[in-house]
Amino acid sequence: MIRELVLTVAGKGLHECTEEIARVVCDSGVEDGLCTVFVRHTSASLLIQENADPSARRDLEAWFERLVPPGDRLYTHTLEGPDDMPAHIKAALTAVSLSVPVVGGRLGLGTWQGVYLWEHRDHPGHRQLLVHIGP
Amino acid sequence: MIRELVLTVAGKGLHECTEEIARVVCDSGVEDGLCTVFVRHTSASLLIQENADPSARRDLEAWFERLVPPGDRLYTHTLEGPDDMPAHIKAALTAVSLSVPVVGGRLGLGTWQGVYLWEHRDHPGHRQLLVHIGP
Amino acid sequence: MIRELVLTVAGKGLHECTEEIARVVCDSGVEDGLCTVFVRHTSASLLIQENADPSARRDLEAWFERLVPPGDRLYTHTLEGPDDMPAHIKAALTAVSLSVPVVGGRLGLGTWQGVYLWEHRDHPGHRQLLVHIGP
Repeated sequence: MIRELVLTVAGKGLHECTEEIARVVCDSGVEDGLCTVFVRHTSASLLIQENADPSARRDLEAWFERLVPPGDRLYTHTLEGPDDMPAHIKAALTAVSLSVPVVGGRLGLGTWQGVYLWEHRDHPGHRQLLVHIGP
Repeated sequence: MIRELVLTVAGKGLHECTEEIARVVCDSGVEDGLCTVFVRHTSASLLIQENADPSARRDLEAWFERLVPPGDRLYTHTLEGPDDMPAHIKAALTAVSLSVPVVGGRLGLGTWQGVYLWEHRDHPGHRQLLVHIGP
Repeated sequence: MIRELVLTVAGKGLHECTEEIARVVCDSGVEDGLCTVFVRHTSASLLIQENADPSARRDLEAWFERLVPPGDRLYTHTLEGPDDMPAHIKAALTAVSLSVPVVGGRLGLGTWQGVYLWEHRDHPGHRQLLVHIGP
């Protein structure tokens, strides 16, 4: 089963989507299988990270922002704005697809794991995910 | 269904292989399922990135080259040449496997997404991919 | 089929688990399919890397340690110790899930590929993996 999810993002940052994906797993009726999430963009990516203390996610974003700053003189691909090339690089450093086993009808995430869409562009918008549930 | 793809690479850089993978999907006859690509090497990796403006890919390669330069004094594993250790690190920073849902008999890639084999060694050669198409 | 693996780790570093995963593949009886490994933690991750010369793995660990040092003044999430935030960042830079095709009843790894759990925290402990074998 494949379901498309369209997420509304307010701009750059980590947007939790664990519940939206869990709902697809639930709807599929699959008891034991594999859930694969795929992001259909090159300037947003996927991340599984700590869902408890928000300071961990803030530090993560700040660290990546420092490693891949906008306005780097190395960039020649600047037509789409100063946040475009850093977005492609951050997407390359993280994941375009993630697979989580489905155990007893539920995502087999660890206690402290949440699934996030990482928007790397500044402006708000919509992002498409494909969620595949297999046997 | 599993198919082996052997790609000929001219040396370091991003080599698009979207069409080769799309052909395996087509041959499989699978309408809705999951396509997983796996690279059988530790100094080449996989990337889904912008397939339009080549300057985005050039900047991506240049950024990674600056982050992981050859000849870093930290390296002790130098027997196989100055491009070997950077290759392992770049491979660790990117993906060894990627999964893309198959929707209506086609790869569910976004409009601007292409699949690339990222060769991290300098010399030309052959690289093996395994493509798995599941239900 | 899904199997949980619990690995005992002595502390920070790469812990090979290729054999444990190969045993699950063997037990599954699947001839051709896909093996997906998922780590249920946010401060440990998965890596496929060179299984021959240990100096390659040592350099890899040293390079990541230099890129993401403990005690960075950027971190505000420090309650769980100086190795906690670097652990989350290193996990984000590497993989939470990996998929390897199963070919003829065996993992389709390349000759020099081993599967590693990368423990990013200093202290010893146990880590849970989920291994899914699909058709």
